[in-house]
Amino acid sequence: MTQTNRRGRLSIVGLGPGDARFLTSEAQQALCAARYIVGYAPYVARVPETPGQTRLASDNRVEIARAQEALRLAASGYEVAVVSGGDPGIFAMAAAVFEAIDNGDPAWRDLDIEVLPGISAMQAAAARLGAPLGHDFCVISLSDNLKPWETIANRLELAARADFVMAFYNPASRARPQRIHDAFALLRRELPQDRIVVFAKSVGRAEEQFIITTLGEADPSVVDMSTLVLIGASGAKLVPRDGARPFVYTSRKAP
Amino acid sequence: MTQTNRRGRLSIVGLGPGDARFLTSEAQQALCAARYIVGYAPYVARVPETPGQTRLASDNRVEIARAQEALRLAASGYEVAVVSGGDPGIFAMAAAVFEAIDNGDPAWRDLDIEVLPGISAMQAAAARLGAPLGHDFCVISLSDNLKPWETIANRLELAARADFVMAFYNPASRARPQRIHDAFALLRRELPQDRIVVFAKSVGRAEEQFIITTLGEADPSVVDMSTLVLIGASGAKLVPRDGARPFVYTSRKAP
Repeated sequence: MTQTNRRGRLSIVGLGPGDARFLTSEAQQALCAARYIVGYAPYVARVPETPGQTRLASDNRVEIARAQEALRLAASGYEVAVVSGGDPGIFAMAAAVFEAIDNGDPAWRDLDIEVLPGISAMQAAAARLGAPLGHDFCVISLSDNLKPWETIANRLELAARADFVMAFYNPASRARPQRIHDAFALLRRELPQDRIVVFAKSVGRAEEQFIITTLGEADPSVVDMSTLVLIGASGAKLVPRDGARPFVYTSRKAP
Repeated sequence: MTQTNRRGRLSIVGLGPGDARFLTSEAQQALCAARYIVGYAPYVARVPETPGQTRLASDNRVEIARAQEALRLAASGYEVAVVSGGDPGIFAMAAAVFEAIDNGDPAWRDLDIEVLPGISAMQAAAARLGAPLGHDFCVISLSDNLKPWETIANRLELAARADFVMAFYNPASRARPQRIHDAFALLRRELPQDRIVVFAKSVGRAEEQFIITTLGEADPSVVDMSTLVLIGASGAKLVPRDGARPFVYTSRKAP
């Protein structure tokens, strides 16, 4: 059945990290209402199946093509949900969809488009640790697919001098295993070696793992694409506990 | 009934911005299960009432006293929810609770403590605009209650040079109306005047309002404590629409 007589809707939906307990109620509703679920295959697989719904799973690194497909379906009058892990607005699908709109069919601008935010990996990791993002922080993608490494290196250097807590997304991949080592080499020149560093792996999933270490001791070779890397600011503190991981928080006061 | 024989639980719960549609399912469950709801009065007022639950609402600026009260109740064996607007880990109650634990009764470290993240104001604002946080960004509190203004000014200057998207929390208050003007004066020296600026007021509430302007044209005197301020990076773009607010997104590519 073609539905060209009514205006479609495109929802860009944040699934949060791994577990369904992070879903917001508006995200849950949008997933149930959608005629098409569009996304990177592992995210589509996390959406509970609804009868009558079509699932269009695609590979990584085809964000613009995926966004265009979703926009075409919405323009045909369907309710479409583009799904992202975490928050679609933070290193996920929302920027790709608006880039596709900016450079695509002018009629797409009149579609009913909504972004439904989700819990991002840094928030879930921070919550499991204590409050490491408790003061001024920055969020940087270490991927040099779309920007030169020099831009990233300059940003890391300035972030270190600004005494931000840092959260790194896309810290390593098989295609560029060296970048996380480059980043640590740079930070070791800029910051004291006792700065707290956390590698949070697969947060919100069964295989979740935390490594709490220091800048001097950290082994960046354990970092993979499922790792969220946190670099503590000068105000970061550990609260030791008997038989449990220490809490990590950042003081609200300037050190 | 005193409950000293069983171990209590302290949940630090993010309510998200204004509307209940942003609540995660784990946050909803923790609010229903709690014997005590503890928090700043306007946030406590947002929690639906559950029979048998006691609500302890307090003033702003008493974060540590509130955290200590919640910890004492949990140590007495109760289920306690400390509620925060947005995400408790982002300029909200989580850092205060862990600071209270760090400096308080050592027995508090053995309590069952969990942080349940929520959608933060910057995420909700970004979602309503498009994808302005679509690339590297930083998050800065402009409050100089707990840190000297010079620290903030230095951070703003370095953030401008790093070409981060910037999100400002606590941008102004009756006690320090001048700081947002100081911040804009500094940014106008550091950045091109055509940089996109957004004032997002009361996001997620009925009175929600967005002002999309430029650094040169922006009037910081409209900013109050309910305003989230976004300063665009060089890659920020507007997508004009007929009869609607333009979309705002940040290009994933380096400019």
